[in-house]
Amino acid sequence: MRSGKPIEVGIVGGTGYTGVELLRLLALHPGVRIRAVTSRADAGKAVADLYPNLRGHVDVVFTGPEVENLGGCDVVFFATPHGIAMQSAPALLEQGIVVIDLSADFRLKDADEWAHWYGQEHACPGLLSEAVYGLPEVRREAVRSARLIANPGCYPTAVQLGLLPLLENRLVAADRLIADVKSGVSGAGRKAEVPLLMSETGESFKAYAVAGHRHWPEIVQGLVELAGEPVGLTFVPHLLPMIRGIHATLYAVPVGEPGDIQRLYEERYCDEPFVDVLPPGSHPDTRDVRGSNRCQIAVFELRRSGQIVVLSVIDNLVKGAAGQAVQNMNLRFGFAETTGLQAIGLYP
Amino acid sequence: MRSGKPIEVGIVGGTGYTGVELLRLLALHPGVRIRAVTSRADAGKAVADLYPNLRGHVDVVFTGPEVENLGGCDVVFFATPHGIAMQSAPALLEQGIVVIDLSADFRLKDADEWAHWYGQEHACPGLLSEAVYGLPEVRREAVRSARLIANPGCYPTAVQLGLLPLLENRLVAADRLIADVKSGVSGAGRKAEVPLLMSETGESFKAYAVAGHRHWPEIVQGLVELAGEPVGLTFVPHLLPMIRGIHATLYAVPVGEPGDIQRLYEERYCDEPFVDVLPPGSHPDTRDVRGSNRCQIAVFELRRSGQIVVLSVIDNLVKGAAGQAVQNMNLRFGFAETTGLQAIGLYP
Amino acid sequence: MRSGKPIEVGIVGGTGYTGVELLRLLALHPGVRIRAVTSRADAGKAVADLYPNLRGHVDVVFTGPEVENLGGCDVVFFATPHGIAMQSAPALLEQGIVVIDLSADFRLKDADEWAHWYGQEHACPGLLSEAVYGLPEVRREAVRSARLIANPGCYPTAVQLGLLPLLENRLVAADRLIADVKSGVSGAGRKAEVPLLMSETGESFKAYAVAGHRHWPEIVQGLVELAGEPVGLTFVPHLLPMIRGIHATLYAVPVGEPGDIQRLYEERYCDEPFVDVLPPGSHPDTRDVRGSNRCQIAVFELRRSGQIVVLSVIDNLVKGAAGQAVQNMNLRFGFAETTGLQAIGLYP
Amino acid sequence: MRSGKPIEVGIVGGTGYTGVELLRLLALHPGVRIRAVTSRADAGKAVADLYPNLRGHVDVVFTGPEVENLGGCDVVFFATPHGIAMQSAPALLEQGIVVIDLSADFRLKDADEWAHWYGQEHACPGLLSEAVYGLPEVRREAVRSARLIANPGCYPTAVQLGLLPLLENRLVAADRLIADVKSGVSGAGRKAEVPLLMSETGESFKAYAVAGHRHWPEIVQGLVELAGEPVGLTFVPHLLPMIRGIHATLYAVPVGEPGDIQRLYEERYCDEPFVDVLPPGSHPDTRDVRGSNRCQIAVFELRRSGQIVVLSVIDNLVKGAAGQAVQNMNLRFGFAETTGLQAIGLYP
Repeated sequence: MRSGKPIEVGIVGGTGYTGVELLRLLALHPGVRIRAVTSRADAGKAVADLYPNLRGHVDVVFTGPEVENLGGCDVVFFATPHGIAMQSAPALLEQGIVVIDLSADFRLKDADEWAHWYGQEHACPGLLSEAVYGLPEVRREAVRSARLIANPGCYPTAVQLGLLPLLENRLVAADRLIADVKSGVSGAGRKAEVPLLMSETGESFKAYAVAGHRHWPEIVQGLVELAGEPVGLTFVPHLLPMIRGIHATLYAVPVGEPGDIQRLYEERYCDEPFVDVLPPGSHPDTRDVRGSNRCQIAVFELRRSGQIVVLSVIDNLVKGAAGQAVQNMNLRFGFAETTGLQAIGLYP
Repeated sequence: MRSGKPIEVGIVGGTGYTGVELLRLLALHPGVRIRAVTSRADAGKAVADLYPNLRGHVDVVFTGPEVENLGGCDVVFFATPHGIAMQSAPALLEQGIVVIDLSADFRLKDADEWAHWYGQEHACPGLLSEAVYGLPEVRREAVRSARLIANPGCYPTAVQLGLLPLLENRLVAADRLIADVKSGVSGAGRKAEVPLLMSETGESFKAYAVAGHRHWPEIVQGLVELAGEPVGLTFVPHLLPMIRGIHATLYAVPVGEPGDIQRLYEERYCDEPFVDVLPPGSHPDTRDVRGSNRCQIAVFELRRSGQIVVLSVIDNLVKGAAGQAVQNMNLRFGFAETTGLQAIGLYP
Repeated sequence: MRSGKPIEVGIVGGTGYTGVELLRLLALHPGVRIRAVTSRADAGKAVADLYPNLRGHVDVVFTGPEVENLGGCDVVFFATPHGIAMQSAPALLEQGIVVIDLSADFRLKDADEWAHWYGQEHACPGLLSEAVYGLPEVRREAVRSARLIANPGCYPTAVQLGLLPLLENRLVAADRLIADVKSGVSGAGRKAEVPLLMSETGESFKAYAVAGHRHWPEIVQGLVELAGEPVGLTFVPHLLPMIRGIHATLYAVPVGEPGDIQRLYEERYCDEPFVDVLPPGSHPDTRDVRGSNRCQIAVFELRRSGQIVVLSVIDNLVKGAAGQAVQNMNLRFGFAETTGLQAIGLYP
Repeated sequence: MRSGKPIEVGIVGGTGYTGVELLRLLALHPGVRIRAVTSRADAGKAVADLYPNLRGHVDVVFTGPEVENLGGCDVVFFATPHGIAMQSAPALLEQGIVVIDLSADFRLKDADEWAHWYGQEHACPGLLSEAVYGLPEVRREAVRSARLIANPGCYPTAVQLGLLPLLENRLVAADRLIADVKSGVSGAGRKAEVPLLMSETGESFKAYAVAGHRHWPEIVQGLVELAGEPVGLTFVPHLLPMIRGIHATLYAVPVGEPGDIQRLYEERYCDEPFVDVLPPGSHPDTRDVRGSNRCQIAVFELRRSGQIVVLSVIDNLVKGAAGQAVQNMNLRFGFAETTGLQAIGLYP
C-alpha cells in the first residue's frame, strides 16, 4: 500500500455539486493535498466562503480555469459540464498528469456517436480508445495503470452494476432489457434553471427525456461489453422530489432456467468493497447509501410474470460521481481502494 | 340533469385520508348533504376539530360505525380498510341504500382469489358478481344503475387508464406488460406505522412488495377484460418521498405496426371529462393533477428499443379514490359527471 | 349581489407563480372572463401549454405586455416584479380600468421610503396616496370604491392579521414587537436562481435578509395605522423546505392586564369569511390552508415569560397574493366576497 | 492522547434514531469496540438487518435490555426515552461503568422540577447533583472526570451555544430572552405515531407545545448558570418538513452599548473544535452541518429595532445528541476531542 508524501490534486470546476462533493471526500483523504480548485466565475474567492460546510476543512482559494494553474498536480479531476475536459486533457496528459474526467467527454468509444449525442465534434477523438472507463468492478486492473480515466455517469453506474451478473452469464435476453431509473435532483447539477427549482420539483414526480437521454449510449456500450452481444435497452429516467440518490428498477427476461440468481449476485460481488447484495426479499432504500460510496442491490425472480427484477441504488454524487472518482484515484495511485470512502449512509 | 333536494350521504371510516378527502369534495358538492360520518375511535368528536381544514365547511360529529347510524342515507361510502364494507354492505343494500366501497372488498370477482390475497374468507361472495367495478371510462352505463359500486384502487386506475387503448385494440403483446408505478405516501393511509414516518420516507425512494402486491390481481382482472385474452403483468410499486400523486410508467411491446398511437389515445379519450391525453413528447407531472380528479397521459413509441411507453398520472386520493367515488356517485344519482370535481391541479 | 354579464379581466405577468395562481382561481370564478394574459417571454404560446394543470380550463394565448393588449378590460391584475405596474397603471386608470397590483409598487405611502427600499425612483408618486392597501379586514369599504388597489405582500398579510386585535386595542407594547416568519419557497417566485433550486432549499432551513427585508416597511406602515402610535418591529424571515405556506410566530409584551385575548380575537374576526381563530391551545398548520384563501390564527398568553404569542398561517400564493387579489376584486365589483374562493385546504 | 486497546462500549436502546446514529459514529471511531447494543423489541436480531446502512460496519446482535448484558463495558450510552436510564444507571455506576445518558433523566438538578415536567418521581434523585451536564463548551473539565454525564437535549444545545457569549458577559436583558426554534422531525424520534407520518409533517409547518415544552426548564437552568442571574425565556418550538437539523432564532435586548458582538463570539469560540462563528452578515443553513458535529452561529445587531438576533444551527442527531455524546466520551476517556467526529456536513 502506498505511503509517504501526499499526492497533489487539482479540481477543475469546483463549484458544481460533483466538485464540492469531491472536496468533501478529498478533504478527509489522508493521502492527498488539494493543490488547486478552479472556477471561472468564482476565481479569487475562498472555497469555504461559498461552501460553508467546508469551513475549517478546505482552505483553498478558487483559481481561474487555465491549465497553468494545474501545474504540479499528480492528478486532475474534471467536474465540469461536457465539452471542457476534452479541451484541456491533452495538455495535462503531456505533463504526465493523470486525468480523471467526471464529465461525459471520454465515456463513449465512438467519436461519431459522441458527436451525435453531444451536438459537437470531439476535440481529441484519438484519446477515446485510450481512456479507461472507470467502473472498477469491471476493469479494476486497467484503471491501475490508466493515464486518462472516464468516470462513469450516475445512471450508467447503477444500471451496469445491477445487470452485470446476468449479462456476464448470459442468463437473460440482452435485446429486451428495461431500465426504469429515478434520480434525485442533484443529478441535474447546480444550474440556475426554472425546472430545477424547489417549487417545480418538490412534491412532484415525472419522467423526462423518454425519447432519448445521453446516458443511453453509454449504458448500451457498457452492457454490450458485458454481454458480448448486441443489446436492446429501453431507458426511462425520472426526477425524484429529493436531492440525493438513484434507484434503478431493472427488468430482464430469463433465457432458460436462470438457476440461483441470489447466489450468483452474492458470489460475483463478494470481494467488491462497494457493492452490497442484500438478502433475498429486500428492497434497497436510497437513504441507506446517502453520502456513502456503496451500491446496494436486490434481485427478484418473478415466476408469475416471467421476469427478473433487479433493484439497484447508489448516491448519485458519490458512487455515481465523486466517490467513484476517488475510488479510481485510489486504484491508480496505489492507495487502499477504500481510503477516504468509509462513510456510512446517513440514516435517517 | 338532476335537481331538487340534495341526496343524503354517509361515510364509514371518515378519519383516514380517503375519508377526509371525500369530506373535502362532498362539502362543496351542491347536490349532497353529509348526514353521517362514522369513526370507531373518534365517535363524539366534531369532524372539524380533527381536520381543521374542514372548519366552517363540515359541521358533523363522528358517530359510531353501527349500521343504524346510516339509516336515511341515499348512499354510503366505505373509506375503510378491507374487510369492513363486506360486513355491512348487505344490510345497507337491503334498505335500498346505494353502497360505494372505496376499499378492496368488492373489486375482485373471484372469491377464492380474494381470500388468497386478503387472507380471510369473503363475507358475502354472492355480491361479488353484482358489484360494478366503477371505472367510468370502461363501464359508465353499468355504474348508472348499480346498487353496489366497487371503487377501483389507485394503482389500478392509473395503470388501466394508461393501457386501455392499447389493449382494447390488441396492439401490444398482452402477456408481456410491465407497470413500474410510483406512489406518494398518502396511498399507504393514515396509519401509525414506523415505515410511514417522515424520517423513514422523506428524502428516500424504494420499491416495495415486489414479490406480490394486492393490486396485482385487480389490475390483471381489469386488463383481461379490456384485452379479451390472458394477460401477463409485471407490477413493481415504489414509494415516493412526497404525499399525493401516482405515476405509472408502462411498458408494452407492439405486435405488428401499431399505427398512430397518439391519435388512438386522443380519440379514445376525447369525450372523457377526466382523462387528458397530453401533446406528443410531453411528460406528465403529478403536481399538475394534485387535488384534481384528472388523469393525464402521454404515450411514446420508442422505435430504437421496440417498446411503447405510456406515462399516466393521477392524484391517488382523488381520481385514485375519493374523486372517482364522487364521479361514480354523480353517475349513479344523475348529477352532471363533473359536479363537485372541477378543482384545478394545485401548481406549484 | 352582482349578476349579469361577466367582467373582463387582464393579467400582466401571467407566467410567475402568482400569475398562474390567479388563473387557477379566475378560471373557476363564475363572474369573470379572462380576456388577456401577458408575458414578455412567452407571447404567442398557449397558457395551458406552459401550465398543463390549466388545460381545458384556460384557453388563452399569452400576448405581449403592451398596454394596448389590455384594452377592454374592466380590471387588470399585475402579477409582476416591482417596478412594472407603476409604469403602466396610469394609462390603464385613465381608461377607467381598475388596477389591482400584486407587486409592491403601490404598497408604501411614502415615495422616498419606496425609493430607499426598492432602489429606484417611483414612477408615479402621486398615486401612492390614492392607492388603497387592500387588506379587506382593515379597509373593506375603501376597497369597494378603489380605482387602484395595492394588494398586500404575503408576510405583511400574515403578520398584520395576527397582530391586528392586539394593536387596535392597545394591549401590547407597540415598540417591542417581534415577527419570526417562515415561508415556503414559492414566495420567492419562479426565478432561475441557484439559491431557489431544490438541491439548495430542500431538506434545509435558514433565515435570510435578517439585516433588512422589503416587507419590513410595509408591515410597519400597516401596524402604525392599526396601533395609532409608533411601532418597533423586529422582522426575521426564514425559508422553509416546502412550496406553499407562511407561518408567522409573533411575540408581543402585554401592557397591563390583557384580559381574555382568545375572546378578543374571536370577536374581532367573527364576521370575517377568511380569518379563522382556532380554539385555545391549537397550533395552526400551514397545510390546513394550502390552496385556500384562509388565515388561521391561534393565540397564547404565556404567563411564565410574560409574552403573548400569536401563530398565524396563510397560503402565501392565495391569501398572501392571488386569493386576496380576487377577494379585493369581488369587493370592488360587487360579487359576494367569497365567490371563487371556497376551496378547502388540501390535506394531506 | 490515549492509545492502546479500544474501550468497550454498550448502547441501551439501539433502535431509535439517536441509537443508530451512535452506531454510525462509533463504528468508525478508532478507539472503541461496540460490545453490546440492547433492544427490548428486537433482541436476537442483527443490528445490520434492521439498519442496512450499517451492513459491513456493525456486526452486533441486539441483546435484551438487562443490565447483565452490559457487564464488561467501560461506558454505556442510554439512547432511550426518559425514565429508563435512571432505573439502570446506579447499578452500572457501582460496577465502575461510565454512564452517558442521552435522555433527559439527569439533565435537571432539581428532583421536584424533574418530577413536574416528566410526570413521575425520579428514581435516584441523589445522582442529580453528581451528574455532569455535558455541554463541553461550558464544562469541559468536569466532563473529563465524570462518572455520569447528562448529555444535553437538542434544542438546549442550539440555544445555549447561541446565547452563551451574551449571557456570560451580561450584555443583554436576561429576563426577556426569546428562542424561536425549528426542528426536523427526527428530533421526535422513531415512534409509530400519526402526527409524525410523512403525510402529516411533509410540506407543512407548525409550532407545537407553545404552552410548555420539557426542554424549557433545561434551557433555563443552563442559561441561569451562564448568566449568574434569573432568566426569563419564551421558548417556541416548531416542526420542520425535513428530517435532520435544528435552527434556533434567538432574540435578546442589549443592556447598554453591546460593543463588537461579532468579535466577542469569535473570541469566545475560537478554540472550540465544534462551534463555528460565521462571518458578519451570514445566515447559517442547517444543511451545512447535516451529519456533522458542528454548531454554526451568526449574530446580528439590529439597531433599527434594538434587538440582537442570533442564528444557531446544529444537526439534532449529532451535536444535538449522538455526536455530542461521543465528544463527551472522547473527553472522558482521553481521546482527542474530535476523534470519530470529523465528518463534513452533507451538502447538497
